[in-house]
Amino acid sequence: MSVESRNRLRYKIHEIIFEADTPAGKFFDVALLIFIIGSVLAALLESVPSIIARYSNMFYYFEWAFTIFFTIEYILRLYSTLKPLKYATSFYGIIDLLAILPTYISVFFAGTQSLIVIRAIRLLRIFRIFKMVTFVSEAEYITKALFKSSRKILVFLFAILMIVVIVGSVMYLVEGGVNPDFDSIPRSIYWAIVTLTTVGYGDISPNTSFGQFIAAFVMILGYAVIAVPTGIVTNELINPKDIPTNTQVCMHCSRSGHDDDATFCKYCGNLINGGLDT
Amino acid sequence: MSVESRNRLRYKIHEIIFEADTPAGKFFDVALLIFIIGSVLAALLESVPSIIARYSNMFYYFEWAFTIFFTIEYILRLYSTLKPLKYATSFYGIIDLLAILPTYISVFFAGTQSLIVIRAIRLLRIFRIFKMVTFVSEAEYITKALFKSSRKILVFLFAILMIVVIVGSVMYLVEGGVNPDFDSIPRSIYWAIVTLTTVGYGDISPNTSFGQFIAAFVMILGYAVIAVPTGIVTNELINPKDIPTNTQVCMHCSRSGHDDDATFCKYCGNLINGGLDT
Amino acid sequence: MSVESRNRLRYKIHEIIFEADTPAGKFFDVALLIFIIGSVLAALLESVPSIIARYSNMFYYFEWAFTIFFTIEYILRLYSTLKPLKYATSFYGIIDLLAILPTYISVFFAGTQSLIVIRAIRLLRIFRIFKMVTFVSEAEYITKALFKSSRKILVFLFAILMIVVIVGSVMYLVEGGVNPDFDSIPRSIYWAIVTLTTVGYGDISPNTSFGQFIAAFVMILGYAVIAVPTGIVTNELINPKDIPTNTQVCMHCSRSGHDDDATFCKYCGNLINGGLDT
Amino acid sequence: MSVESRNRLRYKIHEIIFEADTPAGKFFDVALLIFIIGSVLAALLESVPSIIARYSNMFYYFEWAFTIFFTIEYILRLYSTLKPLKYATSFYGIIDLLAILPTYISVFFAGTQSLIVIRAIRLLRIFRIFKMVTFVSEAEYITKALFKSSRKILVFLFAILMIVVIVGSVMYLVEGGVNPDFDSIPRSIYWAIVTLTTVGYGDISPNTSFGQFIAAFVMILGYAVIAVPTGIVTNELINPKDIPTNTQVCMHCSRSGHDDDATFCKYCGNLINGGLDT
Repeated sequence: MSVESRNRLRYKIHEIIFEADTPAGKFFDVALLIFIIGSVLAALLESVPSIIARYSNMFYYFEWAFTIFFTIEYILRLYSTLKPLKYATSFYGIIDLLAILPTYISVFFAGTQSLIVIRAIRLLRIFRIFKMVTFVSEAEYITKALFKSSRKILVFLFAILMIVVIVGSVMYLVEGGVNPDFDSIPRSIYWAIVTLTTVGYGDISPNTSFGQFIAAFVMILGYAVIAVPTGIVTNELINPKDIPTNTQVCMHCSRSGHDDDATFCKYCGNLINGGLDT
Repeated sequence: MSVESRNRLRYKIHEIIFEADTPAGKFFDVALLIFIIGSVLAALLESVPSIIARYSNMFYYFEWAFTIFFTIEYILRLYSTLKPLKYATSFYGIIDLLAILPTYISVFFAGTQSLIVIRAIRLLRIFRIFKMVTFVSEAEYITKALFKSSRKILVFLFAILMIVVIVGSVMYLVEGGVNPDFDSIPRSIYWAIVTLTTVGYGDISPNTSFGQFIAAFVMILGYAVIAVPTGIVTNELINPKDIPTNTQVCMHCSRSGHDDDATFCKYCGNLINGGLDT
Repeated sequence: MSVESRNRLRYKIHEIIFEADTPAGKFFDVALLIFIIGSVLAALLESVPSIIARYSNMFYYFEWAFTIFFTIEYILRLYSTLKPLKYATSFYGIIDLLAILPTYISVFFAGTQSLIVIRAIRLLRIFRIFKMVTFVSEAEYITKALFKSSRKILVFLFAILMIVVIVGSVMYLVEGGVNPDFDSIPRSIYWAIVTLTTVGYGDISPNTSFGQFIAAFVMILGYAVIAVPTGIVTNELINPKDIPTNTQVCMHCSRSGHDDDATFCKYCGNLINGGLDT
Repeated sequence: MSVESRNRLRYKIHEIIFEADTPAGKFFDVALLIFIIGSVLAALLESVPSIIARYSNMFYYFEWAFTIFFTIEYILRLYSTLKPLKYATSFYGIIDLLAILPTYISVFFAGTQSLIVIRAIRLLRIFRIFKMVTFVSEAEYITKALFKSSRKILVFLFAILMIVVIVGSVMYLVEGGVNPDFDSIPRSIYWAIVTLTTVGYGDISPNTSFGQFIAAFVMILGYAVIAVPTGIVTNELINPKDIPTNTQVCMHCSRSGHDDDATFCKYCGNLINGGLDT
């Protein structure tokens, strides 16, 4: 094979695997999507005791079929790209590798180690699902709004953390002696989080009247406080860009703060951008 | 009956059944509404063991009375409309048919099959309630906003799905060995959904400290993440249409901010696009 | 007592009881507020078995003291107002009467009827607390926004009702045979409401895989759907008034739809409000 | 040491402890932050029975190390500030003192009192965490919005309180006789709060059909009512200040839309309020 035809092959493979504009590329992406979902579903079902007991063999073959397919895909990606190292160290490159490694590792350590540990490493294959996110472009708008409001949400989460630490400690004092559910502060904090976020498992719940009074207070607090992250994100989604602050400075009086539609300086009455008196 | 009088009858029936403008049409619609609610309530109460044991006969007659009424209504609809096939294959036409079929089917299979299965088919009658939605016109505004933001909500739901699959797998690793509640990944994912959505049944809950730590993390995540769909829908309800930015500038006074339907400048009264001086 | 001095007395009492501008009126209102809270707290504590067992007598005297005070207040209100019948039939007049009646009725029927029923009627005294709402003026803003969006919220609640009826019926079919928790459709609907609203008691929860799958679907639905009422109310709070539509009609071309800042008709170029050509 | 060098030392200490602009000040703040987190974590872990049983001594030394460090810090703060009394009576001054007092008090009362009570006082040390809030500046925006909408939220919380009192009383009447969970009104109110806020522990849940019907009503109410605080806070975050509507109109070109600080018209450059032609 000549260098030129090899390059053409690489280019062709790259077009199919990395791009989705051509029919072949589109077909490959859809097939890959189905394979990823299939392999994730197989990993999920494999963990169900009643299913693995009956179809143990089938899952073994499925597992290897998926792994070989993804391995070939990974090698072709490395081969067809012009900068293999850049791909291999990129976010998706690492995820692609992590998606195939567990099955191979399970071969070498199968005899000596317990099966449960191997299955544990296999679970990393779940990260394959991350690939699917590339198919969706709308996600950018939401993540952008979340990213922009991330500092405010962090402050909010910090406030929540402080509230649950204090409430958990108080509940430990109130219920600790009489209620075995509140036998340590970390456990009381866990209860406070369960209650404040309105999850409310009910595995830990206060017995004393005063404890129930505090619990009621925490619930209503959580009910009202949920407004804060909602308000932050809604605000960011409605006003997605920072207010454009006009940076013009008047050449005559050197003052700023002009509107975008201003021609004359509102402080000294001269033209903002140089020019003559009117 | 002459063709003309028959046509007049069809027109009259159509007016009563399909329209709600005339007093007779309005009366029919309200009566139908009451019958639909009555038949749904009967289907609900029929499933309560203590009620069916005592009033078995009454429900049998009710059931047939409702079915015959709805059958006559269905036939009249087919008869009075100009395009019966179009009605029969429309959304409401199919629902109308599904609302009466179960009772008739239960006659033919009553002897041979078990009663429970028949009652199961009967439950499809519940779809009659769908008719009620036609009476409410305000719904359009909400459904429109939901429809417009459906892509963003789908992306959000996909992100939620990815989070619960990963969290569920991690929890299976952490709690799987020590806690029988987390005996498979699908079950752990079910727990993750119960927790992330702040439902919190408490039928499955983590025992280990690390499991409770992850659970607390998932709860706070769910508490903060609920802001996203709220922000999306609120944004759509507040800004239902994209702001139409008209970029026209008046050639005489050079001012912008004109409506799309403006021909003359609203500030100086001249033609916006060219034209002569006044 | 002369008619004039009697009128002055009635005026004075009216000023104290009905108004809160004078120091005496303000003092009365605050005292009444404390008495209402006190009587409500007494009613609450009276229902606790351990408390009533010990302080039975004290609550008896408290109860009568509150009732006599509120009775005097009610008589004075009737006496001092110019239109006693109008007050007696007003919302607060009826609540004021309902707040004192139970105690008197308990006297006449104490011997013959069971105590529990009497206590039941007494609980209506709780409505006294409604008076407190008059002290808060900010409430109007919220109730106005809620009232304005009430139609949209009703449509939303109707949709929720339809969803829970259908989901409840489906769950009855899926879990009915194997899970005693889902032994009737109404009970399954109750479960659907508990799940959709993310309350999640856990007293009823699905056992089968398919049931848990539907439950997960309902949870995520409820998690996303909560955005709707929030969006509706937020929209109403942010845009409290309907968009002010300019009602100007051009005198020359008789067309409307002008902006508030328009001087010239944007359709024909003439002055909107009569006048001459430029 | 001369007075001058002493003053210079005080100034130097003040710069390090109170300010974070210099490298030394920044280092001190970060170190303090780590120490606060460390001491809080120690207090949390100390309450876990299995941990304190094994590492009792270690926590004793940790406790004293943290306390001595914070004591020195407190003394240096008092020494370096120009107005020690003002610092000592400020919010952070009191918190700083409360953060070290419990350990010292535990010395004097250790022999005579039980250990649990001492540990209880020690828990106040948790307030040290409050210091961390000073490191975050973004919090102001959120607290400001919450503070501004606090009156509306209070009205909302009052309405919630009224609803739960009435619902709790009604549930006591409905379920009281047959369900031991609802044996008093306060307990029923506790249930109403657990349900309305969608926490839903499940430790108390209705048994009767009518009770479940009311519960379903309360859940849907809570589901819809959560829109109110969200709407209030979102509104405040989106429209943080009342829009300043400047009503000035330029005397020369008769155009409005000027800023509050404008002297000259931004459209024609003349003095807005009268003045001469340029």
